[in-house]
Amino acid sequence: MRRYFPILTWSRSYSRDTLTSDLVAALIVTIMLIPQSLAYALLAGLPAQVGLYASILPLVIYGIFGTSRTLAVGPVAVASLMTAAAVGKLAAQGTPEYYGAAIALAFLSGLMLLGMGFLRLGFIANFLSHPVISGFITASGLIIAAGQVPHLLGIKAKGETLPELLHQIFAHLSGLNVFTLILGAGAVGFLFWSRKHLKSWLLARQVSPNMATILTRAAPVAAVVATTLVTYLFGLDGRGVAVVGTVPQGLPVPTLPPFDLDLWAQIAVPALLIAIVGYVETISVAQTLAAKRRQRIDPNQELIALGACNVGSAMSGGFPVTGGFSRSVVNFDAGAQTPAAGAFTAIGMALATVFLTPALFYLPKATLAATIILAVLTLVDLGAIRRTWAYSRTDGAAMIATILVTLAMGVESGILAGVALSLFLHLYRTSRPHVAIVGQVPGTEHFRNVDRHAVITAPDVLTVRVDESLYFPNARFLEDFVQDKIAANTAIRHLILMFPAVNEVDSSALESLEAINQMLKASNVTLHMSEVKGPVMDRLRRSHFMADLTGEVFLTQYDAMAHLAPDLTAKTLAACRRDTVRSAI
Amino acid sequence: MRRYFPILTWSRSYSRDTLTSDLVAALIVTIMLIPQSLAYALLAGLPAQVGLYASILPLVIYGIFGTSRTLAVGPVAVASLMTAAAVGKLAAQGTPEYYGAAIALAFLSGLMLLGMGFLRLGFIANFLSHPVISGFITASGLIIAAGQVPHLLGIKAKGETLPELLHQIFAHLSGLNVFTLILGAGAVGFLFWSRKHLKSWLLARQVSPNMATILTRAAPVAAVVATTLVTYLFGLDGRGVAVVGTVPQGLPVPTLPPFDLDLWAQIAVPALLIAIVGYVETISVAQTLAAKRRQRIDPNQELIALGACNVGSAMSGGFPVTGGFSRSVVNFDAGAQTPAAGAFTAIGMALATVFLTPALFYLPKATLAATIILAVLTLVDLGAIRRTWAYSRTDGAAMIATILVTLAMGVESGILAGVALSLFLHLYRTSRPHVAIVGQVPGTEHFRNVDRHAVITAPDVLTVRVDESLYFPNARFLEDFVQDKIAANTAIRHLILMFPAVNEVDSSALESLEAINQMLKASNVTLHMSEVKGPVMDRLRRSHFMADLTGEVFLTQYDAMAHLAPDLTAKTLAACRRDTVRSAI
Repeated sequence: MRRYFPILTWSRSYSRDTLTSDLVAALIVTIMLIPQSLAYALLAGLPAQVGLYASILPLVIYGIFGTSRTLAVGPVAVASLMTAAAVGKLAAQGTPEYYGAAIALAFLSGLMLLGMGFLRLGFIANFLSHPVISGFITASGLIIAAGQVPHLLGIKAKGETLPELLHQIFAHLSGLNVFTLILGAGAVGFLFWSRKHLKSWLLARQVSPNMATILTRAAPVAAVVATTLVTYLFGLDGRGVAVVGTVPQGLPVPTLPPFDLDLWAQIAVPALLIAIVGYVETISVAQTLAAKRRQRIDPNQELIALGACNVGSAMSGGFPVTGGFSRSVVNFDAGAQTPAAGAFTAIGMALATVFLTPALFYLPKATLAATIILAVLTLVDLGAIRRTWAYSRTDGAAMIATILVTLAMGVESGILAGVALSLFLHLYRTSRPHVAIVGQVPGTEHFRNVDRHAVITAPDVLTVRVDESLYFPNARFLEDFVQDKIAANTAIRHLILMFPAVNEVDSSALESLEAINQMLKASNVTLHMSEVKGPVMDRLRRSHFMADLTGEVFLTQYDAMAHLAPDLTAKTLAACRRDTVRSAI
Repeated sequence: MRRYFPILTWSRSYSRDTLTSDLVAALIVTIMLIPQSLAYALLAGLPAQVGLYASILPLVIYGIFGTSRTLAVGPVAVASLMTAAAVGKLAAQGTPEYYGAAIALAFLSGLMLLGMGFLRLGFIANFLSHPVISGFITASGLIIAAGQVPHLLGIKAKGETLPELLHQIFAHLSGLNVFTLILGAGAVGFLFWSRKHLKSWLLARQVSPNMATILTRAAPVAAVVATTLVTYLFGLDGRGVAVVGTVPQGLPVPTLPPFDLDLWAQIAVPALLIAIVGYVETISVAQTLAAKRRQRIDPNQELIALGACNVGSAMSGGFPVTGGFSRSVVNFDAGAQTPAAGAFTAIGMALATVFLTPALFYLPKATLAATIILAVLTLVDLGAIRRTWAYSRTDGAAMIATILVTLAMGVESGILAGVALSLFLHLYRTSRPHVAIVGQVPGTEHFRNVDRHAVITAPDVLTVRVDESLYFPNARFLEDFVQDKIAANTAIRHLILMFPAVNEVDSSALESLEAINQMLKASNVTLHMSEVKGPVMDRLRRSHFMADLTGEVFLTQYDAMAHLAPDLTAKTLAACRRDTVRSAI
């Protein structure tokens, strides 16, 4: 029970102090979330209130199922962009079909997360390598920022890729609206300034540190209030400034996603991508924050929690949600102690849908665009390209490829290319086990790589040490390796496979061992083995291999050499005695 | 040059003896290939002559590019079945579209093989695990055999899955044709008998061993001749016995595949599957045979050779070809010395298209069905299920799943399910590196797993030995592992990561190490490292990690413990002196 309902653990020690901390954190996060949730809904191509809806029920659900004490779930920039890309192919913005598809996307990706959670498949997220995910997020941030520029200029320009967006912006530049530009540029300038300097400015004016923090977090709300008032007072909506307009008042009503199998088939891949990207982000943030307080999160339970949040979002008229980086950090810094802070935030958001929506009519879209730009520019990390490249050419190339494909072909192609590239690199790397030809260190019972140490070998005995478990992706490599060595040196009469680090031999590798045995038999070479671990030996005994093996299995490599090349063993000991330890290769 | 044209190597030492051997082998293979090629073309749903066409140019091309001395390429059963499944979705049998799609399939899978060869991607074939490929071939053999039963009974019944086929056969059983049944059953009986007993029967009658071998191989041709004659003489084609009918006479004319992007997109996945399955089969046969004569094949060059063969097949009106198991063995046993034997076989097949085709009119399809059944039953290896299951439950389950999906849902679903299953198992296994918590063996400088040895540990120092390279699929596991241990034991002040077997740390793993360092710092635990290999250390120095590392890097684990827990080191030496070597955990 406790495993699936972490709330049962933390709620038992809930105190008045915890309540106070959680309430303060919830207040700050609510102030931050109101403009962000509206902005991300517009980014996803959805009506503004959908952002508010996605910020109520999912937060309560996370409070019940989540294992992180401080993660703040809700609409985030990258998932919103991915939603727009996926749903934009199926329906036109503003239609009920578009909204329905976005709901179905949240529902399906929630179901997928739940399924992965119950099957304990959290490890799947590991196969998005760090360079790929970080490149993808940087590129998404750039596309999102570029996509907001038309809103700042008051022009119509749309596109899913950076070249398309830039082309559209330049093509429509002549239609720019001066009032929108002034409001938008003012909002961007104010938000930039307040992020860097507002806190110290307030502190210098004797504002208490706590109040200064809250006021700084409230800067976007101040921008929203100020630009809304200016628009209302000067009637700017009549002069070409795009405003949010009528937002339906009241709590979301329970909704069901459209149960249309065709639609589900079309959104299956995007839903999976949103699920995985969202999960990777969630788990990274949650783990970073938990570590700071020496707490634990459970990656598989997080799949269930995030899945339930998305199903909840869909059923309350919302769109895909994940654990957001910046809001979670704010929640943590503001002192949130338990997921109850999220539930209190949900109450704040619910109050906003009931009382605040009429006031949003005159809110300029340019202000929301400014909020988005400020939020996503923290995602863009171009320095990571240089750092990754300096560390590893392969990883750097994977990162650059992911960025370029995402910018040039859009988010879906970008993340798919990144996943394919990651998997390909992984498969390539694991297709060759580490093997070495070894010889005896003179005067000892130790055997070392002939390429790196001065060791002694017998002319008719070849010893191949395998340094990894053998299983299907790398088994054939050993077959090729042995075949090469045997074809290259016809003096060899005995081959010893030394297995000190082999923890597993699967059926494909067993097949390879049998092939090696047959091949050597045909070439009149005897196959021996040494230092085979107990569990591996037990398994081999259950197969035909032990009966077919032309040679013997030796407990140690020294036993094998003493048996197959007694002269050599004597020689190395003699060499040792005479203190003339030199290579005899 | 030599790498891409192996013919330049073997042709220089071509002698009269080699020529004789190759000619004898070519004769035997030609006799075997004529009925098989016709049968496999019909199995693929194509006109009979297409099988002959696919057995001419590809064989010559393999002679130029192939690295195996004895591989016999041409139409094979499984690829023919896969062709029928892929093309059957796009067009009706007998239409020019169907034939065109089969040609395009050969062309595209040839291009894919060539591309993989030039990019040296031969390793990709390793990711079809042995249980999966062997299960797939067993299931395909069963489907093919079941699909031939209607031809033996003279009824119309079609299907791509075993349940469908069986249902169709029982539904149409009442329409069976007695003459067809007699011919078909007779052919099956004769072929079974001749495979088992004809050779010894001939030897008992003083036939020379060589002649006995050739006559035994000619048994299918004898069946073809006898049933054709019976059909002709008794006019059985007028009594419901289906015959091959008119086969166009003459060599294939150069053809181009239809350049239709839509079509190519539709056949891309089947083409890739045929390419990979064909390549896996080819390479297995080629390697087995090469090993018997201590020869080498080059897996990447084989991709190029097989790719060129398929492009050649497409451009001479043929369908997908691969290296066949049974014919290659026959070629090898018959004494083929070089790929020239294949070229001579091609001449034999060309002569057949020119002179033999009129004689094929009265050839009953039931005879060809009998040939196919005999050929594919050697592919069915039900005992492998038991053997694999006994050896490994996981591998056995993968095999059974592949067989069941192939039988129940057809070849494409079967092989796709098998590939997905193989990859999933591989990813799962590689998502957790081998790590152990280690302690000092009393009185020595050695450190061993605390779970397996009586070792001494310090209460405030935790040493984690990592036994594998760290890269993105397994990096997070270490993060989780460390976080678990630290959260569980608040006494820990120092954590040592011991890296004696870590050959690589990629950017994702570097990120994990940085996260571990940050997390430990936040928990007031110092992170140290020991026994880091040179190349790994060089890389780490190129990152921020070394500057951020809270602790030190020690050359040996003993140095680390001597520095961090000097008391313990003294104690273990004292313990040793008193000869009271016991665990102090």
